[in-house]
Amino acid sequence: MTHYRAPLDDFRFVSESLVPALTSNAVADVWPTAQIVLESAARICEHVLAPLNRSGDESGCRYQAGQVSTPPGFGAAFEVVRSCGWLSSGEEGEDAAITTATAFCFDEMLAGANVAFSNYLGPTKRVAQALRTLADPQLAGTYLPALLSGRCGGTLCLTEPHCGTDLGLINTRAEASDAPGEYALTGTKIFVTSGEHDLTENIVHLVLARIAGAPGGVKGLSLFLVPKLRPQTAGRGPARNAVACTGIEHKMGIRASATCTLSFEGARGILLEPAGGGLRAIFSIMERERLTIATQSVGLAEHALQKARAYARERLQGRAAGAAAAAHLPADPIIVHADVRRMLLTMKAYVEGARALLLWTAHFIDVSRHASDEERRSDAREVAQLLTPMAKAFVTDICTEATNLGMQVLGGHGYIRESGIEQLVRDARVTQLYAGANGIQALDLVARKLPARDGRAFELLMRSMDESLAAFAESATLTPLLRAVRDGIEKLRSATSFLRQEMPRDANLAGSAGYAYLQLFGYVALGMVWAHAAHIAQQRTLKLDGTFAEDFWTAKTVTALFYVQHLMPNVERCLASIRAGSGVTMQLGTEAF
Amino acid sequence: MTHYRAPLDDFRFVSESLVPALTSNAVADVWPTAQIVLESAARICEHVLAPLNRSGDESGCRYQAGQVSTPPGFGAAFEVVRSCGWLSSGEEGEDAAITTATAFCFDEMLAGANVAFSNYLGPTKRVAQALRTLADPQLAGTYLPALLSGRCGGTLCLTEPHCGTDLGLINTRAEASDAPGEYALTGTKIFVTSGEHDLTENIVHLVLARIAGAPGGVKGLSLFLVPKLRPQTAGRGPARNAVACTGIEHKMGIRASATCTLSFEGARGILLEPAGGGLRAIFSIMERERLTIATQSVGLAEHALQKARAYARERLQGRAAGAAAAAHLPADPIIVHADVRRMLLTMKAYVEGARALLLWTAHFIDVSRHASDEERRSDAREVAQLLTPMAKAFVTDICTEATNLGMQVLGGHGYIRESGIEQLVRDARVTQLYAGANGIQALDLVARKLPARDGRAFELLMRSMDESLAAFAESATLTPLLRAVRDGIEKLRSATSFLRQEMPRDANLAGSAGYAYLQLFGYVALGMVWAHAAHIAQQRTLKLDGTFAEDFWTAKTVTALFYVQHLMPNVERCLASIRAGSGVTMQLGTEAF
Repeated sequence: MTHYRAPLDDFRFVSESLVPALTSNAVADVWPTAQIVLESAARICEHVLAPLNRSGDESGCRYQAGQVSTPPGFGAAFEVVRSCGWLSSGEEGEDAAITTATAFCFDEMLAGANVAFSNYLGPTKRVAQALRTLADPQLAGTYLPALLSGRCGGTLCLTEPHCGTDLGLINTRAEASDAPGEYALTGTKIFVTSGEHDLTENIVHLVLARIAGAPGGVKGLSLFLVPKLRPQTAGRGPARNAVACTGIEHKMGIRASATCTLSFEGARGILLEPAGGGLRAIFSIMERERLTIATQSVGLAEHALQKARAYARERLQGRAAGAAAAAHLPADPIIVHADVRRMLLTMKAYVEGARALLLWTAHFIDVSRHASDEERRSDAREVAQLLTPMAKAFVTDICTEATNLGMQVLGGHGYIRESGIEQLVRDARVTQLYAGANGIQALDLVARKLPARDGRAFELLMRSMDESLAAFAESATLTPLLRAVRDGIEKLRSATSFLRQEMPRDANLAGSAGYAYLQLFGYVALGMVWAHAAHIAQQRTLKLDGTFAEDFWTAKTVTALFYVQHLMPNVERCLASIRAGSGVTMQLGTEAF
Repeated sequence: MTHYRAPLDDFRFVSESLVPALTSNAVADVWPTAQIVLESAARICEHVLAPLNRSGDESGCRYQAGQVSTPPGFGAAFEVVRSCGWLSSGEEGEDAAITTATAFCFDEMLAGANVAFSNYLGPTKRVAQALRTLADPQLAGTYLPALLSGRCGGTLCLTEPHCGTDLGLINTRAEASDAPGEYALTGTKIFVTSGEHDLTENIVHLVLARIAGAPGGVKGLSLFLVPKLRPQTAGRGPARNAVACTGIEHKMGIRASATCTLSFEGARGILLEPAGGGLRAIFSIMERERLTIATQSVGLAEHALQKARAYARERLQGRAAGAAAAAHLPADPIIVHADVRRMLLTMKAYVEGARALLLWTAHFIDVSRHASDEERRSDAREVAQLLTPMAKAFVTDICTEATNLGMQVLGGHGYIRESGIEQLVRDARVTQLYAGANGIQALDLVARKLPARDGRAFELLMRSMDESLAAFAESATLTPLLRAVRDGIEKLRSATSFLRQEMPRDANLAGSAGYAYLQLFGYVALGMVWAHAAHIAQQRTLKLDGTFAEDFWTAKTVTALFYVQHLMPNVERCLASIRAGSGVTMQLGTEAF
């Protein structure tokens, strides 16, 4: 069995060279700071969290009488993470030196090492983010330090048994209480990640609920903060709030992550936003959560790639076409076979491409936070919002596929639990489902983000892409890449025009063509990433050390060419599917399926 | 939770109308006989086996001191199946009335109900098949009745810890013993499906081993029959042979199927073929096993489709684009949403298409067994051998994808064990791995089956396809289908010529382009299937009853159109990938990956 290694070299390459090239940006060199944070975190991921990954899966979480026990070792590991200050140092916003891009690297390697464990940190960071932006100083003062120090966990309580996607159906009710701003919440929330566990003293829940008398639908939703333990009052300890964990789910994967059902029985909660602004208030929190989920799938696929690569170098089976590669051995390592290389190169193209796509997205978020003029900030925010649903769905799709390819490289051995790769496959599968199933991301992209402000964000992104391609040097290697990307961009533009023209006439087009459009967008974006990666590799503008560098650069160029030859042709299929319209998709009666 | 229902209507449609149309064949009407067998078997699948599917997964098999216990209920269910004579009546060869096509339907519904359970029957049928063709009458008389009555199980022992694909590396040794034709076998076999269990009195193992002094590689392999219990001798009961189960694998799925490690310690075995003919001897057995695996994936995907469809009709979430479909309810059933329909139609196109593709392949096997003249028999055999690796890999790929789409329809609920669909996903995943990982199927197709006898099988199949298309009536609905299929066939021909021309010059092309070629072949074959399905639906040559029929025919036409518009465009991508050659795939040094 191989062990997970954080891909620090690729983090550096993407942060220091690739994203600046993609954005034509001579950004402030943040890598030296990021490197310090990421290198020390990498050691903990590799040596503390990765060793608990399989045992955590085998034990799972245990539920008894309202209590949830995390697997053996999780408590001690959480103490290490807590004492290193990861809940603040691994997150932008708290530490000025941490960019969103760095936080994404952080999240990726956390998930690569132990994705179930990472689920005890992610929602906590999201609740901290919410308190920073939504809570008054007193409330923030009560909970933020505890969240950031890891003494208190956080959760997002949205889904109910009868509604997930359609939050307008939420039934959880909030009744005003005697105390000003305080409400009594009653209802059931399901699929609450880390809703109850034994890692922190307290847990605060962000809850979407409907104030008595509020209208139906999403406009009637408000956002509340509901602590498990309410602050102590004079002379008495903290009081248990009326929220109970009534069970945990038994899942395909992320078995060490507690997915809880919470019952609110008149639990005291504090209104965070003007009543009725609940959904708007958590919008940016959910957007960020979606990208965190995408980083999880990259981490899992990176881990699978490491396992598959190691197996392909060690496993002896068959002989290379032509002459034996290792005549002194009974057979050649399977990495000599073209079909095994096809799988490994597909994995590399997807994993490294997805990482770059996410850090490219992170760049826009960073600009939206730090740029000096408001227009640049707001432009970047719109582009990031456009990219988010695409990145969430496309990255989790291709990375889950990559993880499955990793299993395929191991053949039957990959199906055995001992190999560890089948757990990665099971763990990865949820990334396509949670924080909005991928079909919902496609709808969000096509029906909301794309038409917003008359398609402005798309035009801004296209302009940024054109600008970066203008700096492209042509050569025998690079020109075919450039041509393929330009062709992809043209098809993306054409599909976008088609949708913008036809959607007003065909109410079902967003739903029928959205997924293919999202994929088309993704394949073109990955083409951009790989063309620039090859460009840098040819120019070697980044100084890497010694012999390693040579292999690194060759691999980037070869993977780029492989992507353009073997994977990018998917754009044709997407375009054909989009242009087919919604007629056939909508034709069948409900009973005829 | 929905329960599995055997798709008898579709079995009938494909058997009675679709395969005859695909093969321009007025075949003997075997459906009335098949219907009797399949209808009674369907009841047992639905009422006896399906209810044990989830409990079997939860319990798994247990290993203790050489013994393997199957999950609670499996013993009683096996008695039912045994007493119904399924080991003979569900298999061609034993019962003259059973065609291979019928046996495939049988296997599909067995797997749809409980794929792990089906693994106690499949290998037994394969061993019976081997004894019929390879054993002398006395040996066959000793074991065949017990195998066919289910008193004895069977296994295929090929893989060893250091070799799976590359059987030439097999180490298990056979030493001649005193008794003529008897050998003492020593070695370790892994991944032996049903290698040990508590369902039958005895188990016979088909073992590939190397006779002492035989050459290395596959030419030195011989095939032996090794019973767990040797026949009783005068006055004494059956004697335990020196073969021991030393453990079972813990797997991602098919957890109720015992995957065993067997240790042969001088176990007595009988040579089945002239020494050195081991691999050739099991060739047709493995070919048949590959297709059984493919039927398993169809059964699992059919079950997933049933669950997803039921969920999509019941789950209320959001409103239809345009006007509400169920204004009296709080929300519309999600089947109104185009993106949900996209997933369901993709599943239908893959599942029903894959079923037809397998029964089309079965037709050639049946002709190869029953046609009156030798030339037709031998032509059909060659076509079946060409289709087998393609069908195994393409069907298991698209059906595993369909099963995953079923989970996607359920969203987060699909990830929960209770939904039952996550088990289908875990169970389906192995079909891409066992009986030859799918990459190996692509190599078999391109490097062995395609060039055999100068491409004769491919030409025979093309001619058969052209013939069937000649009978195609054109119409506004059908002409676009016909055009798409003709275009696909042209691309398949072009890719085939390219490979046949370039493979002699490029030793790695079979490996680098094989998978894309297999997929191209698959998409075109499925296009044939769907075009003919729509053709029949338009003509309604099959008389179905009442209102059901209307929906059935509409669904066939709509699914065919959906396939051609949204899935068939994959052929372009495959062709581009094939034409790219092996240069980039082979470029990277082993250490640079």
